[in-house]
Amino acid sequence: MLTYLERAKLCNNPVAIKLLSLMDAKKTNLSVSVDVTRKEELLSLANSLGPSICVLKTHIDILEDFDNETVTMLQQIAKQHNFIIFEDRKFADIGNTASLQYEKGIYHIADWAQLTNAHSVAGADSIASLKKVGLQKNNAMLLVAEMSSQGNLAHGYYTAETVQMASQYSDFVIGFICQHKLTENPTFIHFTPGIKFSGGEDAQGQQYRTPHQAIVEAGIDIIIVGRGIYTATSIQHEAKKYQEAGWEAYLQKMSLL
Amino acid sequence: MLTYLERAKLCNNPVAIKLLSLMDAKKTNLSVSVDVTRKEELLSLANSLGPSICVLKTHIDILEDFDNETVTMLQQIAKQHNFIIFEDRKFADIGNTASLQYEKGIYHIADWAQLTNAHSVAGADSIASLKKVGLQKNNAMLLVAEMSSQGNLAHGYYTAETVQMASQYSDFVIGFICQHKLTENPTFIHFTPGIKFSGGEDAQGQQYRTPHQAIVEAGIDIIIVGRGIYTATSIQHEAKKYQEAGWEAYLQKMSLL
Repeated sequence: MLTYLERAKLCNNPVAIKLLSLMDAKKTNLSVSVDVTRKEELLSLANSLGPSICVLKTHIDILEDFDNETVTMLQQIAKQHNFIIFEDRKFADIGNTASLQYEKGIYHIADWAQLTNAHSVAGADSIASLKKVGLQKNNAMLLVAEMSSQGNLAHGYYTAETVQMASQYSDFVIGFICQHKLTENPTFIHFTPGIKFSGGEDAQGQQYRTPHQAIVEAGIDIIIVGRGIYTATSIQHEAKKYQEAGWEAYLQKMSLL
Repeated sequence: MLTYLERAKLCNNPVAIKLLSLMDAKKTNLSVSVDVTRKEELLSLANSLGPSICVLKTHIDILEDFDNETVTMLQQIAKQHNFIIFEDRKFADIGNTASLQYEKGIYHIADWAQLTNAHSVAGADSIASLKKVGLQKNNAMLLVAEMSSQGNLAHGYYTAETVQMASQYSDFVIGFICQHKLTENPTFIHFTPGIKFSGGEDAQGQQYRTPHQAIVEAGIDIIIVGRGIYTATSIQHEAKKYQEAGWEAYLQKMSLL
């Protein structure tokens, strides 16, 4: 099994190289999802979380007071703390529309989110259109191959086709949102949401697993923690705990402990 | 087979009732998709198309100069010409996130789009969360059960599960984005995109059918035309042609010709 750093050397996409390298340097496989609706709160969380994370996952379209300054400042914070901004947009339309949503509009996602994601439901041509926009800006994409919500339809044939699409566009698609390791190809990075120390389920069908379950048992690379961290009393303390648990699980998986 | 007006009387959701009734009154089953990136162009198109359409389909997130006035004016035009605004957002996230995207952010979609749509991929709980926001505002939702892009994954089991989800939330979900009639339940309204007089395919994998193919052969209720109309030299003339073709196909299907 290869380390994150060894895998970085096998990648071609600049975001994949940067991400795997900084995970090694910062000793973190923690991504935090900051689902807040105020700009100030987003930026303050990004600053607090910065030292502990490899990826900050955003939903820019739930901010009530978004302006262009928001992303400029977010980019500065990302640079300062050396993490990747991942806009969790889940593009899911035909190529013509998805590429407009990626490049245009108020948000101009392609201009500031080095990493974003798409559903595979619209087919390979949709991913090809997103790639046309994204590669020009040295960006990368994840495909949603599996989901963490109860009764979701991303499994079986759907997941297998998604992995196939990723292989087809592997210069742009650098990994998956998934529940377990989907391919032995070491250049693909596996992200899993729904991580909480306590496990369990929320009132809206989100199912949780622990960092150990995701990384050691399911072979995941990056754990995404949301409400488990950003609703904590001490954000920094809680992020540090998840960072350490995630890193320890990685070392255990690599038999480096 | 029931007429649009007869079906309106069987519906409970206010948007379904309004939509089927106005289709009958205006003699139109035409929806136009206006994928433009400037507010002025969107509003001008809405005004020109108003008399011919039952539904205006928008992608609010591709507008480069969106402001709150855009939706206020859009609502005024919709009222004046008696059509429904359908924001083609294709929500596709877990419940907590999807409901924030529907209600919050810059766009506040739930406040002005009486009709919007969601993918079923995230599972029934995601639809339940959207419903919680939408029903309070007397809105309705469509589920994407099939797509018109080449190689898409919305078929077979995926489509069948989507129809099942719609039945589960039939007070809020009033129909489908699909390629053919999926249920005999007359309260569900079938919308199909990818309509063009000429048929064929675009450069990004979108596959086209004619109004007659969609309505008579595939049992669709509402045809969605995009570039076939809004890129025409005379928008109004072209819209009128599609309106007449769609209505004639409906009368033919109902054996009323």
